[in-house]
Amino acid sequence: MTSLFLQALSGETTSRPPVWFMRQAGRYLPEYRALRAEAPDFISFCLNPEMAAEATLQPMRRFGFDAAIVFADILLIPGALGQKVWFEAGEGPRMGLMPSVESMAERAASAGDELRPVGRTLSLVREALSEDRALIGFAGAPWTVASYMLDGGHDTIGKGERAVARTYVYKDPVGVDALLDVLVEATAHYLKMQADSGAQALKIFESWAEGLPDDLFERLVVRPHQKLVARVRELGVTVPLIGFPRGSAAHAVRYARDVDVNGMALDTACPLGVGREVQKIKPIQGALDPLLLRAGGEALDRRVDQLMEAWGHGPWIFNLGHGILPDVPITHVEQVLKRIGAQ
Amino acid sequence: MTSLFLQALSGETTSRPPVWFMRQAGRYLPEYRALRAEAPDFISFCLNPEMAAEATLQPMRRFGFDAAIVFADILLIPGALGQKVWFEAGEGPRMGLMPSVESMAERAASAGDELRPVGRTLSLVREALSEDRALIGFAGAPWTVASYMLDGGHDTIGKGERAVARTYVYKDPVGVDALLDVLVEATAHYLKMQADSGAQALKIFESWAEGLPDDLFERLVVRPHQKLVARVRELGVTVPLIGFPRGSAAHAVRYARDVDVNGMALDTACPLGVGREVQKIKPIQGALDPLLLRAGGEALDRRVDQLMEAWGHGPWIFNLGHGILPDVPITHVEQVLKRIGAQ
Repeated sequence: MTSLFLQALSGETTSRPPVWFMRQAGRYLPEYRALRAEAPDFISFCLNPEMAAEATLQPMRRFGFDAAIVFADILLIPGALGQKVWFEAGEGPRMGLMPSVESMAERAASAGDELRPVGRTLSLVREALSEDRALIGFAGAPWTVASYMLDGGHDTIGKGERAVARTYVYKDPVGVDALLDVLVEATAHYLKMQADSGAQALKIFESWAEGLPDDLFERLVVRPHQKLVARVRELGVTVPLIGFPRGSAAHAVRYARDVDVNGMALDTACPLGVGREVQKIKPIQGALDPLLLRAGGEALDRRVDQLMEAWGHGPWIFNLGHGILPDVPITHVEQVLKRIGAQ
Repeated sequence: MTSLFLQALSGETTSRPPVWFMRQAGRYLPEYRALRAEAPDFISFCLNPEMAAEATLQPMRRFGFDAAIVFADILLIPGALGQKVWFEAGEGPRMGLMPSVESMAERAASAGDELRPVGRTLSLVREALSEDRALIGFAGAPWTVASYMLDGGHDTIGKGERAVARTYVYKDPVGVDALLDVLVEATAHYLKMQADSGAQALKIFESWAEGLPDDLFERLVVRPHQKLVARVRELGVTVPLIGFPRGSAAHAVRYARDVDVNGMALDTACPLGVGREVQKIKPIQGALDPLLLRAGGEALDRRVDQLMEAWGHGPWIFNLGHGILPDVPITHVEQVLKRIGAQ
């Protein structure tokens, strides 16, 4: 029995949209908070297969989403390449000095092996999931990961602008391009390992596609994604890929045309009309406002209906435009699932 | 002698693009830092006509920009409506409790009178400027100002998302719409006072149009701007208006069509092709990446050339996509001015 999620991702218009939420395993769930408290730190939590598998499964048990996404973090890759990563409570990630691009290049092909615990998590989850639920693996996209590697998580001018990293892009284009190439290679191996371990779809999170001028969007997002997709296929991966260039609605149609992913995730700010244009090119995923999920009420029902009306006539996976917020009431998640007929 | 700036804004394709920079009076200038040190706090500085006029004129003397923009702040309006505003060094604005919408509604029509010092600044600058240099007045747009009024500057979830304010939008739509209406009225009177005091163009800064789903873009940006433009005209203002819905490139063409401003400012992330579409509808302004101005070098020249090639064949005012950064070298500003033939 193929899952509704994989049906939609293969281009079928399903009877109702399959649904899962970004960061569906997270702090808004009391069972997650209890589990998380048992781990000494966030990275250890991600790399403990039993704990990560349990976190992945918690929202599946509670809500019966159509897809599970492996519990992991986009910053595991720098760790696998030798850059120290840790999280300060209540703040963003912090990272040690970046190793040389040359030394990271030597380690790129073994990124999958380095991150075997994530593969083990995937295997555990796949065993526990019923057949009609899909399992998604993921990785951070090269530019997004590079932007943290370059600023060490210390960017104070404007997180949304990735100012430190973008200044490197302008001042040392050769160095940045070399770093992106290393990340393409490492990420391809990491994604292959995930597919080999049971992931049935792979999502590429470009969390910081936002705010880029179009020349940089081409150079930092489109081209590295093209290279990554080609390299993943070259390594023999056949499962569908989803691209998520967050914050780049103005470039969405171009991305959909130029990057050979199987599906495209849209963010909160993507106009419904743009979503329909993308949908003519490939299946889409998204894009309820996470703040509306937090607010609930009639406004939530109304927007869910609008999305259903706008996108429900083509291949579409229901999701949020960004991750679920820690203070979202569980009843609001249930309200959405009922509204779209998934519960 | 009409200024090149006003020519472009009236729809003429000028021999070279007129140029000014957002936040051109600012901390990257040593003379600004010296002047600013003489004022006890930022709001007092803005409301001291002699000081604000001097700050406005400093970059005009140094660089000979085609337009000066009055030195003021988008958060003067809440102050005029009775909400306390102050700035913590190195942080964003902080604001006291918001007065009731009813009490603010009573004060809306006198917002211009309350902010007479800004009019005095404009008069002083206009006297000092040569005829071929234009003088721009401005105000924060209703939603942007409302978003600070609603969160008091204390939004910790995500500044870029205006999360606190947007949650009010969903949970108390009637209250938020009433607040926006009061701000439309107050801002219209404030802009009229500026035009009466010598402003030759008025810019509406929607600094936080970013990240809005399309239904909210319509409700929080398009409609209030339409109301504001209509009200400003009703009050007898005839000078051109520039709209700047920052961070909304995906909605740019719609904004250009639906809002009856005379010119539209584009931000860094607006694709060149979208800019050309907007330019068919009205004159555009923008949109060099402020981080590229900071980086300098060949990359800066190359992008300036790209912008010239893409937009130089229609009515276009050269500007940054966002404000100039405090650590921008003065030589980089000069490099741009030379490149476009303005120095």
